Amino acid sequence: MEQLQADVCVVGAGFAGLAAARRLVQCGLEVVVLEARDRVGGRVWNRALPDGTVVSAGGTWLGKGQHRMFQLCEELGLEVYPQYKRGAHILRLDGVNHRYRGGIPSVGPGTLIALGLALVRLNLMARRLPADAPWRARGARARDARTLGQWLSGPLNVPSATARTLLGSAMNLLFCTDPAEVSLLGALTLARGGGGFHYYTDSRRTETHLVDGGAPELARRMAEHLGDRVHLSSPVQQIAHDGTGVQVVSTSRVVRAQRVIVAAPPVLAGRICFDPPLPTSCGHLLQRVVPGAIMRVHTTYPEPFWREQHLSGQTLAPQSAVQLTIDQTPRSGRPGVLSSYAFSTGALRIARLDPAERREVWLNSLAERFGPQARRPTQYLETDWSSQQWSLGGMIGHFPPGTLTNYGSALREPVGRIHWASTESATLMHGLMEGAVRSGERAAHEVLTRLGAR
Amino acid sequence: MEQLQADVCVVGAGFAGLAAARRLVQCGLEVVVLEARDRVGGRVWNRALPDGTVVSAGGTWLGKGQHRMFQLCEELGLEVYPQYKRGAHILRLDGVNHRYRGGIPSVGPGTLIALGLALVRLNLMARRLPADAPWRARGARARDARTLGQWLSGPLNVPSATARTLLGSAMNLLFCTDPAEVSLLGALTLARGGGGFHYYTDSRRTETHLVDGGAPELARRMAEHLGDRVHLSSPVQQIAHDGTGVQVVSTSRVVRAQRVIVAAPPVLAGRICFDPPLPTSCGHLLQRVVPGAIMRVHTTYPEPFWREQHLSGQTLAPQSAVQLTIDQTPRSGRPGVLSSYAFSTGALRIARLDPAERREVWLNSLAERFGPQARRPTQYLETDWSSQQWSLGGMIGHFPPGTLTNYGSALREPVGRIHWASTESATLMHGLMEGAVRSGERAAHEVLTRLGAR
Repeated sequence: MEQLQADVCVVGAGFAGLAAARRLVQCGLEVVVLEARDRVGGRVWNRALPDGTVVSAGGTWLGKGQHRMFQLCEELGLEVYPQYKRGAHILRLDGVNHRYRGGIPSVGPGTLIALGLALVRLNLMARRLPADAPWRARGARARDARTLGQWLSGPLNVPSATARTLLGSAMNLLFCTDPAEVSLLGALTLARGGGGFHYYTDSRRTETHLVDGGAPELARRMAEHLGDRVHLSSPVQQIAHDGTGVQVVSTSRVVRAQRVIVAAPPVLAGRICFDPPLPTSCGHLLQRVVPGAIMRVHTTYPEPFWREQHLSGQTLAPQSAVQLTIDQTPRSGRPGVLSSYAFSTGALRIARLDPAERREVWLNSLAERFGPQARRPTQYLETDWSSQQWSLGGMIGHFPPGTLTNYGSALREPVGRIHWASTESATLMHGLMEGAVRSGERAAHEVLTRLGAR
Repeated sequence: MEQLQADVCVVGAGFAGLAAARRLVQCGLEVVVLEARDRVGGRVWNRALPDGTVVSAGGTWLGKGQHRMFQLCEELGLEVYPQYKRGAHILRLDGVNHRYRGGIPSVGPGTLIALGLALVRLNLMARRLPADAPWRARGARARDARTLGQWLSGPLNVPSATARTLLGSAMNLLFCTDPAEVSLLGALTLARGGGGFHYYTDSRRTETHLVDGGAPELARRMAEHLGDRVHLSSPVQQIAHDGTGVQVVSTSRVVRAQRVIVAAPPVLAGRICFDPPLPTSCGHLLQRVVPGAIMRVHTTYPEPFWREQHLSGQTLAPQSAVQLTIDQTPRSGRPGVLSSYAFSTGALRIARLDPAERREVWLNSLAERFGPQARRPTQYLETDWSSQQWSLGGMIGHFPPGTLTNYGSALREPVGRIHWASTESATLMHGLMEGAVRSGERAAHEVLTRLGAR
């Protein structure tokens, strides 16, 4: 076992951990970062296709107001470029493809009004929440005892069947899980962090830019600056802590430090053995904030052929297991890359098929939207986040009913010398890479304040 | 690393694992049992007080219809004796102690009618569920998108504030967690396994008998019969499985076997690393079925002084953090032992106090019911199941909304050569020791069928 000493140990080299470590190092502290995987980036991951094309298989896009991410790209010399949005999007409903442009899908006025009203009502509830303590809002207990799924299924809340389908699909996509699993208060809390649900459901806000080389390249460069402070393949198993310091034990290293920042998603942070055990509310919070299911497939074609058909590549098919597609062609324009997704119950359903059958179903669903050409990709790459040992699901942990009101106050509260970071603990841009960076910098700030360093 | 070979490896030596192993050994199979703790019994645990008095700090009572438990006691030569029920129980409401006898608390007729009607409605819903697949019931999705907490708070469902308090308290006690966290369908599923909610909420049905020496003594004797097949302090970290067999790796042993029975609560089973990873719905199920919080205190007195006051020792105080007390005096009659409990939000609240303060609050709450004598115990022993590394909460895992309908079919379905047991997977007497035994025997039966043994 390698023995290391530092001011601060950071557990996890996703954007939260990297941002925390970066800030601490800039302030002159000795830092050791322990990462379980054999790479940095966490839920942000570049994968190589057989022909060498690199695709981003996790967090990929930057959007409006994500200032820290854009700044970091600039600081580290990475260019960003706009997402391809020319041409029409497709909404596939009841077996028919409807083309539309901009952010408003081609549905009847009744559906649009119902959608708009539901979003306005949800946003009004969201906006009144205190961002850092939604569990203190008036009526929080009642809203935390309801599920988002139940709210959405109410004919009075969403008075149109098509609107219910569309909104349900958007929420499936946002949480990667059945809205029946998500607390209404929990959903509102996420929305609050982006200024409203429309931020997260409108690709003109959340998916405006791509990082040249992929968002994971940003993580790589951040890690490069940290140099040999970052230790890969070092899953942390135990954190012992007392009044004098912390001892962080991974499979290959023991780090003694003044403080530790656990920058891992709750589902993984909760698997670490803490000595003494975490306070009950903190331990139970980590158990409860679990991720959904997401499977993402990259298919490549000699060219982005859909562009010639005046299609953007963006499609939404709420009734299909493959609900979403988006153009992810590299900046060079070749090969054409489509990124397509199964979320939530769709992902569970499609995960049950054997690989050959799944590929068949998947490609057929692409062909329904883009024609037979889509059925013959030059390459096909599946990323199933649920089968990743150091993710156990995707993309973010959600708040089940009762979680925020009973355990929420433990979300960011340090436990002795243990501090918490993760996009799940962000108050702004919760669930996005931006939220992860902000949570890491917030945790670094807590540590700096307590260590009296600057 | 010790290398072992067996027909079947059983992970966990609680009642589920012990019952499974016992059945398999009786049928002539080679079995190895790996247990994480340094004792058998799991959530059933005998602790010794300083004066040598042994108290059962987990599952303790037997009740009606728990045939397998009574049979096992007989087979292993353990006597059972009836719970002390003479004298009056106390219901403490709004600062006043109300004495009553039998199962019906001393509340006004309006409250009683409201309570009765609510239980009848809940039981009607429960009884219609198919015990082995509640997710297939009509209307299952809608009920799984609702929380028990929301149902209970409906003035139409429970048309009396006191009845809502009492029913809420009973459910807090049953699930050890805020009913806002529990799916209505999940709650009905538990109730279904006992024939209705009244089974679980009426101590005249569930707490009729004690085992001489404690229920843990039964586990000890079952383990004794298994002899050196049981390996303690062997937490399982990894299970690799393929078409030819399984390899179960603990911190100190490697077991190769034909099949494995994972007889651990879902929250712990989900922490094992499976290779290949579990199917998505199975892995996500294990993440979601999390336990609540329970703290139990044993206080001893020279004699069970409450008996002289014509009190049974059983009290219910829904508005106190210490909601429940019950007489747990050993068969010999000395010392007097009171078992008292904080559950759910009460347990979270009281866990935040420092130990001295908690003891003070706890003893005061006993004194409110039993007089100043209760404040001066000869011994005081806390058992906090949330701080137990191999429990992480208590007493059982509940089903949060959306869990049964989306993942429920994975509850008992073998994954290749992996079989599942735990009281959470029982169809009858779910959540009780009886359910654990039955689940273990069911898993053993699955294995025997597949191995072609008898």
